[in-house]
Amino acid sequence: MKIKRLEHVAITVKDMDKARETWVDVLGIPQEYEEEVEETRLAMLPVGETYIELLEAVGPASPVNAWMDQAGESLWHLCFEVDDIDCAVVELKNKGIRLLNETPKPGHGGSRIVFLDPSSTGNVLIELAEIPEGH
Amino acid sequence: MKIKRLEHVAITVKDMDKARETWVDVLGIPQEYEEEVEETRLAMLPVGETYIELLEAVGPASPVNAWMDQAGESLWHLCFEVDDIDCAVVELKNKGIRLLNETPKPGHGGSRIVFLDPSSTGNVLIELAEIPEGH
Repeated sequence: MKIKRLEHVAITVKDMDKARETWVDVLGIPQEYEEEVEETRLAMLPVGETYIELLEAVGPASPVNAWMDQAGESLWHLCFEVDDIDCAVVELKNKGIRLLNETPKPGHGGSRIVFLDPSSTGNVLIELAEIPEGH
Repeated sequence: MKIKRLEHVAITVKDMDKARETWVDVLGIPQEYEEEVEETRLAMLPVGETYIELLEAVGPASPVNAWMDQAGESLWHLCFEVDDIDCAVVELKNKGIRLLNETPKPGHGGSRIVFLDPSSTGNVLIELAEIPEGH
């Protein structure tokens, strides 16, 4: 498994407009695009080769809700880009790492993603993503 | 203020050797260097233009202790590289952002750093760093 870059850092927010006051207005990081995945509104703000991903729940099925109940607005997870997500899954399973989803699922920007179980990774939620060309 | 890149993501750990099993052995991210700052042992693992910074308290004065008491092993803060830390401090104060230290202090790898008060930034701890040439 070859990790190419830290693709994004996910941050949960209660109010996207309020969060953009910090990230866009104060820190000067522009928003590149916004989309909705799994009842979650997400805003992608590029900094060099990494995105700041702001996530706001917009429905009861959003996975952001459970995290917000536990930790509120905070750093949520890290996503690393890999060349081949299917190979990464095989390698991780061979190394005894538990995955939250063993079959890659659709993520932001047309990616295919898996999440590692934080109980296997020192309590840090790690996402791996295979990113389509041009993203 | 111009943010150049996400310079590191700080992660608190209880046991550095155990943490390296995840980051180095499983994910294949090599360690570049290790140093001690403010009674904190830190290991720097480069991924593209960003470092994963693993932090372990090695004495009672380590700022990691208070975070570990509150949140345990977890994502702790993000550090962004800026061109000029003194200019950044002036700009942030003009924008009404509170800082945990208004005078830049020494950080990892010879950097000069300030921390923004999370109460000003949606509960996310943000560090800004001016990095010396060659780092």
